[in-house]
Amino acid sequence: MNFYDAINWRYATKKMNGDAVPKEKLDNIFNAIQMAPTSIGLQPFSVIHVTDPELKEQIQPIAYGQSQIVDGSDILIFTAWDEITSERINDYVKLTGEIRDLGEEELQPVRNMAEGVASRSKEDQFNWSARQAYIALGFGLSAAAIEKVDATPMEGFKNEELDELFGLPEQGLKSIAILALGYRDEDNDWLAPMKKVRRPKEELFVKPEVPELV
Amino acid sequence: MNFYDAINWRYATKKMNGDAVPKEKLDNIFNAIQMAPTSIGLQPFSVIHVTDPELKEQIQPIAYGQSQIVDGSDILIFTAWDEITSERINDYVKLTGEIRDLGEEELQPVRNMAEGVASRSKEDQFNWSARQAYIALGFGLSAAAIEKVDATPMEGFKNEELDELFGLPEQGLKSIAILALGYRDEDNDWLAPMKKVRRPKEELFVKPEVPELV
Repeated sequence: MNFYDAINWRYATKKMNGDAVPKEKLDNIFNAIQMAPTSIGLQPFSVIHVTDPELKEQIQPIAYGQSQIVDGSDILIFTAWDEITSERINDYVKLTGEIRDLGEEELQPVRNMAEGVASRSKEDQFNWSARQAYIALGFGLSAAAIEKVDATPMEGFKNEELDELFGLPEQGLKSIAILALGYRDEDNDWLAPMKKVRRPKEELFVKPEVPELV
Repeated sequence: MNFYDAINWRYATKKMNGDAVPKEKLDNIFNAIQMAPTSIGLQPFSVIHVTDPELKEQIQPIAYGQSQIVDGSDILIFTAWDEITSERINDYVKLTGEIRDLGEEELQPVRNMAEGVASRSKEDQFNWSARQAYIALGFGLSAAAIEKVDATPMEGFKNEELDELFGLPEQGLKSIAILALGYRDEDNDWLAPMKKVRRPKEELFVKPEVPELV
């Protein structure tokens, strides 16, 4: 299926049928998430991959009982860095040096940029990280659609409870979104027959209004 | 080009050659941005589309002189809502009602969800909106790659100056990212020959660590 058909085909599936996503498709979706660009290239996030049925049952009440948590085969919990620590910067600079065969001096600009973000307030660092992770969420959603895998992005869960369940504070992470992957149960999904709602292009894409421009 | 080849082909082009992106390709990229899912479906953002050379020259110093601003043919400024106002909620609820032929009562759940976000602090509302816009940024980047159009996402600009240039405060918007669209000038782009740096999958995708799980 071509990309534009795929993103029209996808929707935020409310009822999944329990079928498992094949490993090959899952690998492709993971690949897209990994390849998503992020500011400075820092990829300030981790994705927790949950398949265990018991664990899904523990998550479900934290996500207000949403059925996709247990009926989706693969639950991805997107978590963002709570802080751009020196260790994380060092790891990234080291990785860049290894992959591109660069020395410390050549790596200084990228280090400086990362340190620039790290100099902001801790809350801003987290918000910045969360935004980057949402680009990757976008890539993951695109890939899922191309694979004809249903994907439901969710923000409706108690973040702190989920963080606690996974020991995220100790890892310097905070949950920001869940992506449930699986297959639609079309007959039992109230949203399946509904038309997509999108703001009109004229509203979403605006011409510049610059009074002072000649 | 298939999606996975496309996202490997793309990179944050540092030097563009001035060639114009054809309208058909641009329409496809806009389509992807429009179709990107957002929480509650609210699409709390607008994209300013700049093509005017004089205006690009005004933007360039605000973006620390980055050349893609003038060498890219189409500059998209992603802006997020500074607040989820009642008017914006009403517009969205009305649009949903029209497209799905639903009455006020059936629309109450979506209204409640939007009002839930609107009850957060103004800063949180903006941060939430910015995250949603970054999903659309991800979709736009994906589409550009599929169209073999180069796309450079940029956060390196003085947000407040750009907001002022476009009168964004009066429109309840704040700039969050720029996406320059155009074509790579491969011979003059230091980044073009560099290998992509990505954190390894084992680090990005983690197995759950749940001590209390049986």
